Amino acid sequence: MSTFKSTTKNIDVKDQAKLAQEASKKLALLSEKDKNEALLVIADTLESETGFILEQNKQDLVNGENNDFSEALMDRLRLTEDRVKEFANGLREVVELKDPPVGEILSDWTLDNGLNVEQVRVPLGVVGMIYEARPNVTVDATGLALKSGNAIVLKGGSNAIHSNSAIVSVIHKALRATKIPEDAVQFIASTDREAAGQLFTMKEHIDVLIPRGGGNLIKTVVENATVPVLETGVGNCHIYMDQFADIDKALSIMENAKTDRPAVCNAAETFIFHEAWLNDHAGQVTALFEKYDIEVHGDEKAAELLPDVIPANEKDWAEEYLSLAVAVKVVSSVEEAVVHIERYGTKHSEAIVTENPENAVTFLNRVDAAAVYHNASTRFTDGSALGFGAEIGISTQKLHARGPMGLPALTTIKYRMTGDGQVR
Amino acid sequence: MSTFKSTTKNIDVKDQAKLAQEASKKLALLSEKDKNEALLVIADTLESETGFILEQNKQDLVNGENNDFSEALMDRLRLTEDRVKEFANGLREVVELKDPPVGEILSDWTLDNGLNVEQVRVPLGVVGMIYEARPNVTVDATGLALKSGNAIVLKGGSNAIHSNSAIVSVIHKALRATKIPEDAVQFIASTDREAAGQLFTMKEHIDVLIPRGGGNLIKTVVENATVPVLETGVGNCHIYMDQFADIDKALSIMENAKTDRPAVCNAAETFIFHEAWLNDHAGQVTALFEKYDIEVHGDEKAAELLPDVIPANEKDWAEEYLSLAVAVKVVSSVEEAVVHIERYGTKHSEAIVTENPENAVTFLNRVDAAAVYHNASTRFTDGSALGFGAEIGISTQKLHARGPMGLPALTTIKYRMTGDGQVR
Repeated sequence: MSTFKSTTKNIDVKDQAKLAQEASKKLALLSEKDKNEALLVIADTLESETGFILEQNKQDLVNGENNDFSEALMDRLRLTEDRVKEFANGLREVVELKDPPVGEILSDWTLDNGLNVEQVRVPLGVVGMIYEARPNVTVDATGLALKSGNAIVLKGGSNAIHSNSAIVSVIHKALRATKIPEDAVQFIASTDREAAGQLFTMKEHIDVLIPRGGGNLIKTVVENATVPVLETGVGNCHIYMDQFADIDKALSIMENAKTDRPAVCNAAETFIFHEAWLNDHAGQVTALFEKYDIEVHGDEKAAELLPDVIPANEKDWAEEYLSLAVAVKVVSSVEEAVVHIERYGTKHSEAIVTENPENAVTFLNRVDAAAVYHNASTRFTDGSALGFGAEIGISTQKLHARGPMGLPALTTIKYRMTGDGQVR
Repeated sequence: MSTFKSTTKNIDVKDQAKLAQEASKKLALLSEKDKNEALLVIADTLESETGFILEQNKQDLVNGENNDFSEALMDRLRLTEDRVKEFANGLREVVELKDPPVGEILSDWTLDNGLNVEQVRVPLGVVGMIYEARPNVTVDATGLALKSGNAIVLKGGSNAIHSNSAIVSVIHKALRATKIPEDAVQFIASTDREAAGQLFTMKEHIDVLIPRGGGNLIKTVVENATVPVLETGVGNCHIYMDQFADIDKALSIMENAKTDRPAVCNAAETFIFHEAWLNDHAGQVTALFEKYDIEVHGDEKAAELLPDVIPANEKDWAEEYLSLAVAVKVVSSVEEAVVHIERYGTKHSEAIVTENPENAVTFLNRVDAAAVYHNASTRFTDGSALGFGAEIGISTQKLHARGPMGLPALTTIKYRMTGDGQVR
């Protein structure tokens, strides 16, 4: 039995945000070396305190069993020695990331009057992270925030309250041996909704809110926040099999985008088929669907060409199934496919499979999404797949950051002007 | 008497936003040449329809006289042949701007599996502009939006309704002779507040809201919008005269920042003096204040060192006077100045005057603002002063764009992936 004590306290949310803000000022002035050393200490401490973390995690698991949580949720909640080791290694990978060099001069120029203008990269300040029952977010988000010179206020889901509290206590213990102030990581221990709500409007102390979780959580934050929000990831992603799609590419892209990890946001939710193409390849498409026992919700033409099609309703076109179900729409042109995506897409990731360069260009230019693909799976919309290292989320909005958000999304710029008495 | 007819209609705001969105899709595909030609046609048409615009403007002026508007407001409302010519020339300057090349590839790389990744600059889509009684914003914002490939929905102040409606009608007439769809410029003709309110939550059709005007307008938008907001410009700017300030630089910077254009957001509102410095230079500072009849609201130490000081209260430290009044705070260190700015500043523009490099670095690093200055006037926080050309506003938030926002602030990116069947 560990004698480790919790350092997360049930204090006023506003006071916590203020403490984070004060800490962020010191943090912003630390060197990359200081920040990296701190992350390595956190990684080591997470490993050495695994026993305490697992013991606290057990409380969340017992609570989950008592409340009949789904196996998927229990799986997300459950920590093991290996998982804690993964958390620690994740932080060690963040240490290796070069970006973003806070203090980097992005551009500089001198006005005719001699005034020197520099655009300098600086941290955002205080990041508010609002998330659901994934304790890994506690570690990942803290690592990315600290690496980029930001303080962080964490509000995790109540289902993981003991696990998250334990992880943050360990992080606090670790920070006491580093140059990063302990207060740079604040954990909202209260599980009532009002506590999260307070974060939404704390513009004086919090610079950005990042909600991570289901559509309802994100919607609540967007609708109620006056603090700027980095909106992340509902993905109703489409794969369009054009009239000129290569059958092998189409089958492997559909298989990968739908079945590799159906529950993630870059998985495909709708297949759009050109009618002539589906007519020629219905057998192979059916074989793919049957291989994975995929539930097909389709329009009338889909029902004519494919077996076992459940009639699709308006809701199906907008649905993020996150399971082995798919909506199927049959069209007669790339334009019709684009119009369907415009109407129902969530501007996340959209793909065309075709050997016709003109249709590919039409699709890539006209579809408005964070990522548009020609002959590849939508699954690549991911920070680590694209080489950004860890990601803080996938932005489906257009301001500040779009698509996978790596460390630069947690920074901003300031103009630094150096003169000799210049006036206008 | 012109026979020109108004084309701005009192139709449903949502329908207008949808029309703008449809138009934005066509606009996004136009070449720079097409967009530039259209802007030149608008410029010429504004000049040739000056009579109509002035005639409509008269209605707003009569209304203003009947309602006893201030001379400052009347001045902002009043159009003349020269002012309309300035609008047209402003558009011609926007045509000359190179940035932002929509379609520009900001970076590209190839993954190990051969998937090619491009980060491409694209327009935001539909810009919602909410502003007060300055008819020039109607022209400036339209020019910047169209040049960057965006449609725009304009909601101007009711005091300028006839002028704005006339200007938009002229723009519509001009667009009919160009490749830009007329619907790309929508004008909300309704003057009721509900109409503006509808824009706040129209996330499906509007990509960004930009409020321009007083603090109350901006606050209303930020508090009520679910559409992402680019927050612009309340500027409570400070000039700190350090212990080691050069007297000549200090006097000319104070004079310029306070008196050149007191009503603009980059004008100074508070002077912070190092006590020892003010003690040595009180006479010259007093002479400056007297020369411009500047009203001084100061703390106790200021009252000891300067004549005619009105005791400052808490409100004075936060006040954006926008007139020949100034708050005066006396401190005994650069740290104390930084703490005062942290507490009361609006993160717009902050300056230190000093010959001491260490104090300058402390100030520039520690003050969190869009622009920080060493030995120069805060008046340079301005798109045209910095060489960006026209600006859509000055951002005082940290996400997406900070400081003067030129054309790039009206664009975003998308990832364009080209593969050969790649899956994860």
